[in-house]
Amino acid sequence: MRDVSIAGIGVVPVAEHWDKSIKELAGEAVQAAISDAKVDSVDALYVGNMLSGLLNGQEHLGALVADWVGLRGVEAVKIEAACGSGAAALRLGYVAVAGEMADCVVVAGVEKMTDRPSPQVTAALATASDADFEAQNGLSFVALNALLMRRYMHEFGVSHRDFAPFSINAHQNAVANPNALFPHTITADDFCAAKMIADPVNLLDSSPVCDGAAAIVLCATDRARSLADRPVRIRASASATDTIALHDRRDLLGLEAAAVSAARAYRQARVTPADIDLFELHDAFTIMSVLSLEACGFAERGKGVRLGADGAITIGGQIPITTMGGLKARGHPVGATGIYQIAEVVEQLRGQAGANQVRDARLGMAQGIGGSGATVVTTILEAL
Amino acid sequence: MRDVSIAGIGVVPVAEHWDKSIKELAGEAVQAAISDAKVDSVDALYVGNMLSGLLNGQEHLGALVADWVGLRGVEAVKIEAACGSGAAALRLGYVAVAGEMADCVVVAGVEKMTDRPSPQVTAALATASDADFEAQNGLSFVALNALLMRRYMHEFGVSHRDFAPFSINAHQNAVANPNALFPHTITADDFCAAKMIADPVNLLDSSPVCDGAAAIVLCATDRARSLADRPVRIRASASATDTIALHDRRDLLGLEAAAVSAARAYRQARVTPADIDLFELHDAFTIMSVLSLEACGFAERGKGVRLGADGAITIGGQIPITTMGGLKARGHPVGATGIYQIAEVVEQLRGQAGANQVRDARLGMAQGIGGSGATVVTTILEAL
Repeated sequence: MRDVSIAGIGVVPVAEHWDKSIKELAGEAVQAAISDAKVDSVDALYVGNMLSGLLNGQEHLGALVADWVGLRGVEAVKIEAACGSGAAALRLGYVAVAGEMADCVVVAGVEKMTDRPSPQVTAALATASDADFEAQNGLSFVALNALLMRRYMHEFGVSHRDFAPFSINAHQNAVANPNALFPHTITADDFCAAKMIADPVNLLDSSPVCDGAAAIVLCATDRARSLADRPVRIRASASATDTIALHDRRDLLGLEAAAVSAARAYRQARVTPADIDLFELHDAFTIMSVLSLEACGFAERGKGVRLGADGAITIGGQIPITTMGGLKARGHPVGATGIYQIAEVVEQLRGQAGANQVRDARLGMAQGIGGSGATVVTTILEAL
Repeated sequence: MRDVSIAGIGVVPVAEHWDKSIKELAGEAVQAAISDAKVDSVDALYVGNMLSGLLNGQEHLGALVADWVGLRGVEAVKIEAACGSGAAALRLGYVAVAGEMADCVVVAGVEKMTDRPSPQVTAALATASDADFEAQNGLSFVALNALLMRRYMHEFGVSHRDFAPFSINAHQNAVANPNALFPHTITADDFCAAKMIADPVNLLDSSPVCDGAAAIVLCATDRARSLADRPVRIRASASATDTIALHDRRDLLGLEAAAVSAARAYRQARVTPADIDLFELHDAFTIMSVLSLEACGFAERGKGVRLGADGAITIGGQIPITTMGGLKARGHPVGATGIYQIAEVVEQLRGQAGANQVRDARLGMAQGIGGSGATVVTTILEAL
């Protein structure tokens, strides 16, 4: 197994891209990543995407995007794991390069969600749940997260307001991110007063429906060093699954796949949570931030919310999260999100995060989640 | 790069499986493959599928199927490349095991198409074409193949009846296959008299809409030898892409991605077309059989149909194809097809193909195609 690094990144601002097809959106990110990496040959293109069939009438994104960006002929494929699609594509790209089965793989994530009416998008997102038991009974994805959040509040005596710091922090960090959908601050009162979506999840607990694309270039570390000014090494990559249906979980609030994949990643990287300088977690809803922090060992069970109250999650804090706005405020174009997270960690480790720079950031972690914790991919990155 | 073999296969009969969900269908094949291989641990599950979101309201098949078959926790993901989804999943499973990034990967293909009304299935299949330029203008997948077939007939002075042997051979070979959807023979007159779908493609040129699932277990050849009575080695695996849109092709009848991936596979296996004992090709339409045979070097350009007239494609012929019925008569549950093909080659190389056994079969080839040749995966297998 050889060492793998990220030689380049490319990111399209998260927005409502009504003037671009999904192919054009993905193409912009891929071309930017290839330019950034200055590679002259690519062996394969892996595209993470969840909803192109349902929302864009377009499957077969691998071949489509490959041709569009001038890579006609290369091996290309679409990889899907619900909202963890981008992260899953990264994982398979890593597998190909680490196993010396490819020298250079471009991994893209893309999603275009805003061309369709809202009920259609909600129904499409529900295909990440168990169709026979959850969606079938009318549970939307927000509703599933509401069940988790309500249970958490009940179990640990936590109020809805205790989740405010996670949303406030994400919005604060989005202000200086030119790629963020919501670059504006909010207050705790705004948070509490926001429109209810599925009690107790309100609008400011929730990440938005939006369009976006991001891409990275993976190659062996030796080659990345010769290409990029500041390559970023993948110290660990691990993936695990859990039941999709919440009612089948052994431990509803345990986020087992997050715990397992994080433990594997720590082992591979030979680090502990204390070594991680920043953590791009999957804050599709505020409750997921809290569960993820607990599952990954940054807080004891039931105490994840305290990291918000303590300011530990801010850029100057003990474990900065969502440093460029996260899913909440940068935006959550679902299949693209896992690659946005990686690109943002790379910016931090290159020291290019501007006003959002985490000081002396050397080790960054990203975690992409599909469903309410059913597919989890954890990646640990290191500045070279 | 280490040697990879197939330690087990599992196949569900192709049918209208109205009594089973997509998860149950995939699960049957996966459990059969695991039993066949007698493996006691699995590192990852890759599921090839195209249309679960559009036709079954269910994405996120990786985690769903993993949990259902008792593999809760393992790395799992869905891989999509239109009708080449199963073949693409096999390719990534091969990459993981050959690169020593996983010791045992189960690769499944599944598709459940018959629960929905026909126009919805036709529209769903059209997402394999270029949505902006082909589907947008009303071209269904049959129509795209009709354009290719018409052009071929014009270019090479071939009649529609010249394609009959491909359909006749597929139906003949399906008779003894207990997993085939259409185990009955047809005549050349039946072929010519069949209902027109999109001129010149008629019903007996076309593979059917159906449900099915197949799975294989991949591991290092050393381990496969200790597990299976007759493991089958993957001598070569190669993937290539082309434009999706037919109007963008450099050579409309050349099937470039098939030629490129076959050439790579021959090189990797150090064989020539003459060494191949049987060829499970992607006969979604009779024209695709002919184009595939030509692109892979079994016939000169414009002369592929002659292999039908000569009887070369029959089980006793020079290059037997669709030996268990092919997409035409075994059936074409799109995302599952690539794995059915592999399982059938394995049966041939194990000498378990019964009445359809190709004598002394030692080297078999399978080719999965997504779209009208936009994604092509070629695999060469060898009896051990």
